[in-house]
Amino acid sequence: MLAAAKAEQHDEIDREMDDRLAITRWSPEETLALGSRILADEGHWRGGLAGQITARTGAGRYLTLGFGVGFDEAKPDSLVLVDDHLKPVGNGSDMPNPGVRFHIRVYRDRPGVGCIVHTHPPAVAALSMVGEALAVAHMDATPFFDDCAYLADWPGLPIADREGEIISDALGAKHAILLAHHGLLTIGTTIADAVMRAVWLEHAADMQLRARAIGPIKPIRPELAVESRDFLTKRKVIDLTFAYFARRALRRDPDCLGPTHRART
Amino acid sequence: MLAAAKAEQHDEIDREMDDRLAITRWSPEETLALGSRILADEGHWRGGLAGQITARTGAGRYLTLGFGVGFDEAKPDSLVLVDDHLKPVGNGSDMPNPGVRFHIRVYRDRPGVGCIVHTHPPAVAALSMVGEALAVAHMDATPFFDDCAYLADWPGLPIADREGEIISDALGAKHAILLAHHGLLTIGTTIADAVMRAVWLEHAADMQLRARAIGPIKPIRPELAVESRDFLTKRKVIDLTFAYFARRALRRDPDCLGPTHRART
Amino acid sequence: MLAAAKAEQHDEIDREMDDRLAITRWSPEETLALGSRILADEGHWRGGLAGQITARTGAGRYLTLGFGVGFDEAKPDSLVLVDDHLKPVGNGSDMPNPGVRFHIRVYRDRPGVGCIVHTHPPAVAALSMVGEALAVAHMDATPFFDDCAYLADWPGLPIADREGEIISDALGAKHAILLAHHGLLTIGTTIADAVMRAVWLEHAADMQLRARAIGPIKPIRPELAVESRDFLTKRKVIDLTFAYFARRALRRDPDCLGPTHRART
Amino acid sequence: MLAAAKAEQHDEIDREMDDRLAITRWSPEETLALGSRILADEGHWRGGLAGQITARTGAGRYLTLGFGVGFDEAKPDSLVLVDDHLKPVGNGSDMPNPGVRFHIRVYRDRPGVGCIVHTHPPAVAALSMVGEALAVAHMDATPFFDDCAYLADWPGLPIADREGEIISDALGAKHAILLAHHGLLTIGTTIADAVMRAVWLEHAADMQLRARAIGPIKPIRPELAVESRDFLTKRKVIDLTFAYFARRALRRDPDCLGPTHRART
Repeated sequence: MLAAAKAEQHDEIDREMDDRLAITRWSPEETLALGSRILADEGHWRGGLAGQITARTGAGRYLTLGFGVGFDEAKPDSLVLVDDHLKPVGNGSDMPNPGVRFHIRVYRDRPGVGCIVHTHPPAVAALSMVGEALAVAHMDATPFFDDCAYLADWPGLPIADREGEIISDALGAKHAILLAHHGLLTIGTTIADAVMRAVWLEHAADMQLRARAIGPIKPIRPELAVESRDFLTKRKVIDLTFAYFARRALRRDPDCLGPTHRART
Repeated sequence: MLAAAKAEQHDEIDREMDDRLAITRWSPEETLALGSRILADEGHWRGGLAGQITARTGAGRYLTLGFGVGFDEAKPDSLVLVDDHLKPVGNGSDMPNPGVRFHIRVYRDRPGVGCIVHTHPPAVAALSMVGEALAVAHMDATPFFDDCAYLADWPGLPIADREGEIISDALGAKHAILLAHHGLLTIGTTIADAVMRAVWLEHAADMQLRARAIGPIKPIRPELAVESRDFLTKRKVIDLTFAYFARRALRRDPDCLGPTHRART
Repeated sequence: MLAAAKAEQHDEIDREMDDRLAITRWSPEETLALGSRILADEGHWRGGLAGQITARTGAGRYLTLGFGVGFDEAKPDSLVLVDDHLKPVGNGSDMPNPGVRFHIRVYRDRPGVGCIVHTHPPAVAALSMVGEALAVAHMDATPFFDDCAYLADWPGLPIADREGEIISDALGAKHAILLAHHGLLTIGTTIADAVMRAVWLEHAADMQLRARAIGPIKPIRPELAVESRDFLTKRKVIDLTFAYFARRALRRDPDCLGPTHRART
Repeated sequence: MLAAAKAEQHDEIDREMDDRLAITRWSPEETLALGSRILADEGHWRGGLAGQITARTGAGRYLTLGFGVGFDEAKPDSLVLVDDHLKPVGNGSDMPNPGVRFHIRVYRDRPGVGCIVHTHPPAVAALSMVGEALAVAHMDATPFFDDCAYLADWPGLPIADREGEIISDALGAKHAILLAHHGLLTIGTTIADAVMRAVWLEHAADMQLRARAIGPIKPIRPELAVESRDFLTKRKVIDLTFAYFARRALRRDPDCLGPTHRART
């Protein structure tokens, strides 16, 4: 339990964030393109094909990238809309990454989930080879305190229904999972939510690898980890963080939202 | 053996890839220049001279870069065409890297090989110093499951016939080899094939170094590794991946194919 | 004690630096923006929100970035001026990072401090997880010889008064502190002073992680470390170093001081 | 001793390199500026002040950068010419890095030396903290086989005559030295020679750190190391390598030789 003084402090920060911080809003297509670019900038796209990001835009409707399109190439007008069977909806003919199939299973099991990210970034990938769960021993890793599952066996290429079932069951009610011999999966109510968790998970794995190479990791106090997690995963904090990364992606490629992009404040 | 459901899934993905995914085609000269750029972007060119990429364009005809030209400088019109004795064919006067000599030996021993990549990228180079073979314990490393040889002794500067014989014998019927104290060699039926295997091998070595620095690596199940390898090394998947990396290289240097470049879809 | 010959050498270098080296001067707002950019260029800004830089510009007046603004986005005209209670002074309405609260406590305890940097850069963050203090065993790490405190327990999210007290007490009269499970804090009489110490501390942590991964670190002789520290932390040396990094930041983004920027030599 | 076939092969490569490869020539000022840029591109300039490159252009005449000028900022017209006492020659008033003093000592002891590089790049710096000499166990590290000295004690800030004496004595007749707790020093008959050795030494240290973090390093056969070293350090090979890196530096900053630059082929 937080001391009274600190609880008050949290309340005041919440009020200030609500009153003073305006968050830029983008359409789902723009947000998904920006989220893809952010993940690419953070090293989540390096093999050329591995990884998917999907957003549920309605019942049985999922927005994603075409198979073979890099996260660093995403644009609002190059996305595909598919149904529960990965078939394109409307007049698009692009094929999504076949790995999207296991996302569908997670969406089915978790009605509140609006976005799923699955990638093989380098630190998570290396960590996934040694049979060690994610360590939460740094403030920046606290978003995963008691909220990162671990699938210790690799069920193989995630293109069929069975792999989706295994991964979804292992994820359970958590927001993230470390997949042995494979990568990460994060979910969120919004695109920003799932994307920021993926970015932070790779940062956490990178810290863990570097720290563990010189010795055992010292734990942190659970109640402090909980307080920090609950603050860092507040909707407003996540949106603010995503907006920063999105501005950075826009500076790197001012055309990434296409010629018709209008930022709505 | 794959379960029936998964085998069906593979068949469907194959059909969809054939029907829906068009791959950009380039001339051999353009493809070799793009392949060189991709390797440079992925860190395979850092010493200034070490490494070669060659493509067999006909009986006793090999396309490669001039000695001293960096992979990051390759252009279709700056390549050299040489014969079995590394002598320029036609009116070119450039000298190829003398290391190309051992490629010729591999081409002689493997009639189906169309491209050879030999580089000293940082992770493979470091791994090559400790006497450890490549570990295949991550989905992204499965292309090398039972398909990466290991030459445990360094035969010395690879400029004469004897080194080519040793390397070619050690490679045998595999598509890749880790050369102790030296680097990697990958072969492919196409340029895209050999290039993507080289890119993936460096990724795999990098994961291995980071993972092994914190503990022993846990194995994966062989039948899952085989399934994943066979999927990731399909012609269509490799071409799709190469096309992504090629677009990235073209974004980084729009002039890399020269003024006369025309992409053929 | 330095040998007489070396003491003379130091005196001559001091005279030459005073006579021959002119240092570019910027306004406090410009210097803070440049300092933020330098820290971003050096990898101190990666989580999107973690970290603050503040400068005391008068009694109870602190200049800092708005909450959610990245170090890589800082400009003189986008800074906020706040009072001891983090309330904006003047007509600004931006909210500072709530973590600035613990800076205020350090300013109260150390009247000579003009700037505080707190960040979570990757090497310091990793080092902070294993319970090891900073090693000073390289010339470039000597600025921290007997001048880097260590807070071995993480007091939790640093947004309330208690955390400021703990951190300020642990810092004591030193210029830097390694905060377990958290990051670094450096102070300086000037902005350049605090910024350069933060840059150097991350370099030192990075060397330590890489060295320790292969074996124990060998100590250096204390009297040589003191001599080196005292030279490297001279006002003129720090200003000269900051000016180099500032020019680099200006080359990377010539607009970072805004259209009205005038460098004063 | 090399087999007859391989000796013939070496002779043929030598003849071909002489006949077919033309090397771009630059003035000493241009070459020093390019060498500085190359070292910066390769990560040798990161602290802002540490490190010097000098070239002897005549009896008691040394060309170098002004104190505080970054290797990444070097231009032919911003260099300083100093005498044996570090005093500017001609109408320049810039002050050189005081560390140049120990270079003068090495020049005095080695009449054939035309260029000296001293830097603290990250891998060499980390390696220098653990009391381990450079390992030569990779083809790319063979230029240092029996040609890299080791100074196991740090004599302190290298600004006085005593440090120059210690470093010069430890270097002896070799071309490189690893300085414990400090960095590297390389010498060469030409600027290209000293620069390439510095670049290669950092590469070798980086491989060593990564390899040693997972296990002991396996040795290579001395006679093969000698053959490789003697080939890789041939004047023509070094010049060819330097020319590649110089072209890369020119692509990164086409203005780095100033408006009056004329490449002479």
